[in-house]
Amino acid sequence: MDLRYLAPIAGVIALLFAYYLTSKINRADAGTPRMKEISEAIHEGAMAFLTREYRTLIWFVLGMAVLIFVAGALTKGQQSMQPATALAYIAGTVCSVGAGWIGMNVATKANVRTANAARQSANAALGIAFSGGAVMGMSVVGLGLLGLGIVSIIFDNPAVVNGFALGASSIALFARVGGGIYTKSADVGADLVGKVEAGIPEDDPRNPAVVADNVGDNVGDVAGMGADLFESYVGSIIAGIALAAAIGIKNGTLVPLMVAAAGIVAAIIGTFFVRTNEGANAQNALNTGTWVAAGLSLVATYFVTTSLITEPFQHLGKTYTGMGVFIATVAGLAAGVLIGKITEYYTSSNYNPTRMIAEQSVTGTATNIISGIATGMLSTALPVLVTVVAILMSYQFAGLYGIALAAVGMLSTTGMVVAVDAYGPIADNAGGIAEMSGLDKSVRKITDALDSVGNTTAAIGKGFAIGSAALTALALFSAYTTAAGVEAINLLKPNVVAGAFIGGMLPFLFGALTMQAVGRAASSMIEEVRRQFREIAGLMEGKARPDYAHCVSIATGAALKEMIIPGLLAVAAPLIVGLMPGLGKEALGGMLAGATISGFLMAVMMANAGGAWDNAKKYIEEGHHGGKGSPAHAAAVNGDTVGDPFKDTSGPSMNILIKLMSIVALVFAPLFM
Amino acid sequence: MDLRYLAPIAGVIALLFAYYLTSKINRADAGTPRMKEISEAIHEGAMAFLTREYRTLIWFVLGMAVLIFVAGALTKGQQSMQPATALAYIAGTVCSVGAGWIGMNVATKANVRTANAARQSANAALGIAFSGGAVMGMSVVGLGLLGLGIVSIIFDNPAVVNGFALGASSIALFARVGGGIYTKSADVGADLVGKVEAGIPEDDPRNPAVVADNVGDNVGDVAGMGADLFESYVGSIIAGIALAAAIGIKNGTLVPLMVAAAGIVAAIIGTFFVRTNEGANAQNALNTGTWVAAGLSLVATYFVTTSLITEPFQHLGKTYTGMGVFIATVAGLAAGVLIGKITEYYTSSNYNPTRMIAEQSVTGTATNIISGIATGMLSTALPVLVTVVAILMSYQFAGLYGIALAAVGMLSTTGMVVAVDAYGPIADNAGGIAEMSGLDKSVRKITDALDSVGNTTAAIGKGFAIGSAALTALALFSAYTTAAGVEAINLLKPNVVAGAFIGGMLPFLFGALTMQAVGRAASSMIEEVRRQFREIAGLMEGKARPDYAHCVSIATGAALKEMIIPGLLAVAAPLIVGLMPGLGKEALGGMLAGATISGFLMAVMMANAGGAWDNAKKYIEEGHHGGKGSPAHAAAVNGDTVGDPFKDTSGPSMNILIKLMSIVALVFAPLFM
Repeated sequence: MDLRYLAPIAGVIALLFAYYLTSKINRADAGTPRMKEISEAIHEGAMAFLTREYRTLIWFVLGMAVLIFVAGALTKGQQSMQPATALAYIAGTVCSVGAGWIGMNVATKANVRTANAARQSANAALGIAFSGGAVMGMSVVGLGLLGLGIVSIIFDNPAVVNGFALGASSIALFARVGGGIYTKSADVGADLVGKVEAGIPEDDPRNPAVVADNVGDNVGDVAGMGADLFESYVGSIIAGIALAAAIGIKNGTLVPLMVAAAGIVAAIIGTFFVRTNEGANAQNALNTGTWVAAGLSLVATYFVTTSLITEPFQHLGKTYTGMGVFIATVAGLAAGVLIGKITEYYTSSNYNPTRMIAEQSVTGTATNIISGIATGMLSTALPVLVTVVAILMSYQFAGLYGIALAAVGMLSTTGMVVAVDAYGPIADNAGGIAEMSGLDKSVRKITDALDSVGNTTAAIGKGFAIGSAALTALALFSAYTTAAGVEAINLLKPNVVAGAFIGGMLPFLFGALTMQAVGRAASSMIEEVRRQFREIAGLMEGKARPDYAHCVSIATGAALKEMIIPGLLAVAAPLIVGLMPGLGKEALGGMLAGATISGFLMAVMMANAGGAWDNAKKYIEEGHHGGKGSPAHAAAVNGDTVGDPFKDTSGPSMNILIKLMSIVALVFAPLFM
Repeated sequence: MDLRYLAPIAGVIALLFAYYLTSKINRADAGTPRMKEISEAIHEGAMAFLTREYRTLIWFVLGMAVLIFVAGALTKGQQSMQPATALAYIAGTVCSVGAGWIGMNVATKANVRTANAARQSANAALGIAFSGGAVMGMSVVGLGLLGLGIVSIIFDNPAVVNGFALGASSIALFARVGGGIYTKSADVGADLVGKVEAGIPEDDPRNPAVVADNVGDNVGDVAGMGADLFESYVGSIIAGIALAAAIGIKNGTLVPLMVAAAGIVAAIIGTFFVRTNEGANAQNALNTGTWVAAGLSLVATYFVTTSLITEPFQHLGKTYTGMGVFIATVAGLAAGVLIGKITEYYTSSNYNPTRMIAEQSVTGTATNIISGIATGMLSTALPVLVTVVAILMSYQFAGLYGIALAAVGMLSTTGMVVAVDAYGPIADNAGGIAEMSGLDKSVRKITDALDSVGNTTAAIGKGFAIGSAALTALALFSAYTTAAGVEAINLLKPNVVAGAFIGGMLPFLFGALTMQAVGRAASSMIEEVRRQFREIAGLMEGKARPDYAHCVSIATGAALKEMIIPGLLAVAAPLIVGLMPGLGKEALGGMLAGATISGFLMAVMMANAGGAWDNAKKYIEEGHHGGKGSPAHAAAVNGDTVGDPFKDTSGPSMNILIKLMSIVALVFAPLFM
């Protein structure tokens, strides 16, 4: 049997499991009419955003497809680029869109059922919320491996398959950037006018932006994160395939696919370990599932690598074995786990850094901000060292191919990581629905407990997304240099230094553009919420309903408009540098390296500063340093607001930027030769 | 005649001119007894800080000298390192210390005389303040070129001369970092307790930290900036000498020295153009002087390069001429001017970016902070592009040597840049003295006008310091690779990527450490000021004097303690990476490149965000968006406070970090072979 068929088969299994989980969720009761109504509004808002987003994207996708087709036709005869790459590209976009669609659809149904289940028990609520997240996780890995497997089998040419990763990247770019802008503009609008100006609680149904805010959680944390990891997942596998083909490793193109396939099975088994007895700890349940999945993955990877790579292979004068490939894969997996733990240390209020920020809030906003930024900057050191060790180890044991396999190893647990991550916004939404429907306080207490676990998992998931983005970008970078026939990217050449400078600057520019976009989008939201409070009679008294849909529509329009310029920048920059006389393909290599390094640093810095500010605020709200309403709390709220675009818009967008630029370089490599 | 003697001769001319200016200042009247008393306190505080700083440093300097001597002895026989390098090292530290000492001594005498002159006319005050700054400028270039010239003539060996640059770097590190911590802890202490808590105005004599605050302006902006540019100045010349020797360019080692010597004469002539008729604009006066100096420098550089480089030289298969060297030098000079202008655009309230921050202050602190950070990030794009063009051009026309000459070109105007820059804190101090001595409001008005010009010149000076640091670091980096016999720093090698990742991270770590240091130092200052307000009876009523000296002593102690760890990090990091198995000399090259790029970006980002926040606050204080006391103003004050360590501590420290690591690598290069 052709082992390659195992990849799409594993994909189908994942999708079937997602289908099973979906019907389980659908069977659950959605609660009172009021709950159904609110949930319907969130569901509709989320799907409306996706529809409009995809409708905007279709022109971009078609344009890119034509560009790839033409570029492929022009450079035809060179094995590394083909007109058919355009087809693979479209397939990549369709699969990513499909995963986002399924995941969002189910997540926005699971939220209300989680709230309803919380009326009975915490355990039941955890079950629904996690199942909802698992559907997203399974859709990501399922459609990823199904699509990639089919494209690989049909075309059997790494140059064509690369297009699939570019497709995934295109969607990820807009899902992450657009989703990030959406969620933060809605969040800021709801908080600043509702909580601060009007003085009504979080998730109060009188707040016109409350539905948009809940939609935003799904758009940003479910669809955005899913597309991000879909891209990393697909990108790392493809980089492995491309490098194996270029180096000529027997069965080498098969290993990444098989490691991923085994990871799917491991993740499915892992989900069955996410269960609590009544009263037990939700965090432990999620941890158990994650560890089981990672452990099984590890064992499977051992058999896959050692049984497939039976002949030692040579690269740049060194010889590597299957065992070496296994070690490289494990190095990646270990790095992923370590970066997650480091992220937890810097962002959880159980540890010193976040508590220091809370303490610094006592002397005011300025010291809170300085302390948060310093923590974010400090928190880059260990992840860099971990990444460096993973790079050196994986290269030592399996060469360039090893770096790609380290990324695949880290991402073999993607199904579980996405499941745990998407669980967060579902629990968060459930709390919002409980509040808006006026359910008993005990319900909100249960959802709050689930949600607070979700905050930690979200921070860890972000660390994982960043780490995997860096490794994937490096793997794609290696694949690019092979494809473009670059033998050295020598920093002693001025064009390489120039490229590295430009690349290092791009994440700063990208971050600035996305932050300013959030600012503008939030301003229009603030004005709209103020308008509704002013113009809708009886709103504050609860006698009239706000116009939720209009806020949703404003956030959607703003996000879609604002994502265009950063998006074009990410696509155009590598093409410009690669084609510009005086710069060229080596400068492009320098640019990718510079962007990966500075993007990684900025992403870690922004995500961790944002997470730490958030949890420092919560820590004060628990009663420390004067508790809610104290001056320290006011300072911490400001820090949290600054952190919002850091951790949910600009920071995560860096992941996409560095991967997308690398994949653009890889696909268009023949143009630069 | 041996042309080399012109370098120390030009140095002596600069020092004689500084002596002439000093006696001019000393002849001016220092005003009322109260003014003299306050000025004496500032003068004593500043000199006490320098004395204690130098006393701390002497052990570090001796330790380094021994280390260099031993390393030189161990690798003896290799032309590129010698025990005598330790002597050059000590000479470098002595010259840098001397420049700082002279500059601070005169600046803290010029301040009170500026205040007194302002009782007569703005023009007289400008004359004294600028003369004070010019003493610092002349000391920097004078001692730099005198010391470097003598060391070059005595040892006639680039490997030994390198030590001079390392000496300059060692002092710069501690002057910038220690000075930055000092000035901001005093500033925050004075502002937070005095202005905010006690509600007394800026520079009120009842504020116990007011003298420390004024000392801090000198320590940070005069001594710190002076040592920073001393290092760039010396480092760029030395890199040029080292590369000329390695490549074997006839007269090539002479060109950087002669360009610098010509620059001194140009700067001296330029100072005579800084004069206003009564009522004219101080900014215009400073600009005229700067342009005259730059123009004369340009003409002189043309004659120096084309008449010395009469034989075309070859490097890496290409041929370059004297005219090419001239163009490379001009590219650097032009880049310096452009970066200054870009800095002005992003940080002056005459332009959109700063006004946007002011506008965003209306919706609160969080939006002010986000807007400021976004502006800082955005402001990196153009300086990077300018630097890239300068690198490409100078390499195109004169190879690696051209990059060093671009740095020399940029720095040929150092005498004038430091003079204009050091003028700022003198005018600022003059205002403080006028306030504390209860002089007429008209005096304060004149000093305020001079000071506001100083804010713009300070921002431009910072941009210049950053740009020159980047070019100098690149030149030193090239010199290092030549000295270490590195033929390629190939980003396709994992150890180079690892080095680049670590290097990219170091500025983040360094920034975090320095920001946290400011936080700790400021806390002790805040407590001390609160204590004095509480314990000294009659202080608020003006019946008792605060204990200024104790605040000065606390700031001094904290700054000296806190500078040690960041300082050791900067020295140790290149040695560790260069010597560690698995990393080594190519990884060290990657690290230097990574650090230069990310340090440049962070320095620009932090300096410009800080400058923009500062001026946005001033813009609001002029009456926009509600003016002083409005909520927008409160938000802008927070932004300004966050910006303080950005622009005055962490940001400028990056300059030193990237230059110091490069020079450590260059001096210890033989150890890594």
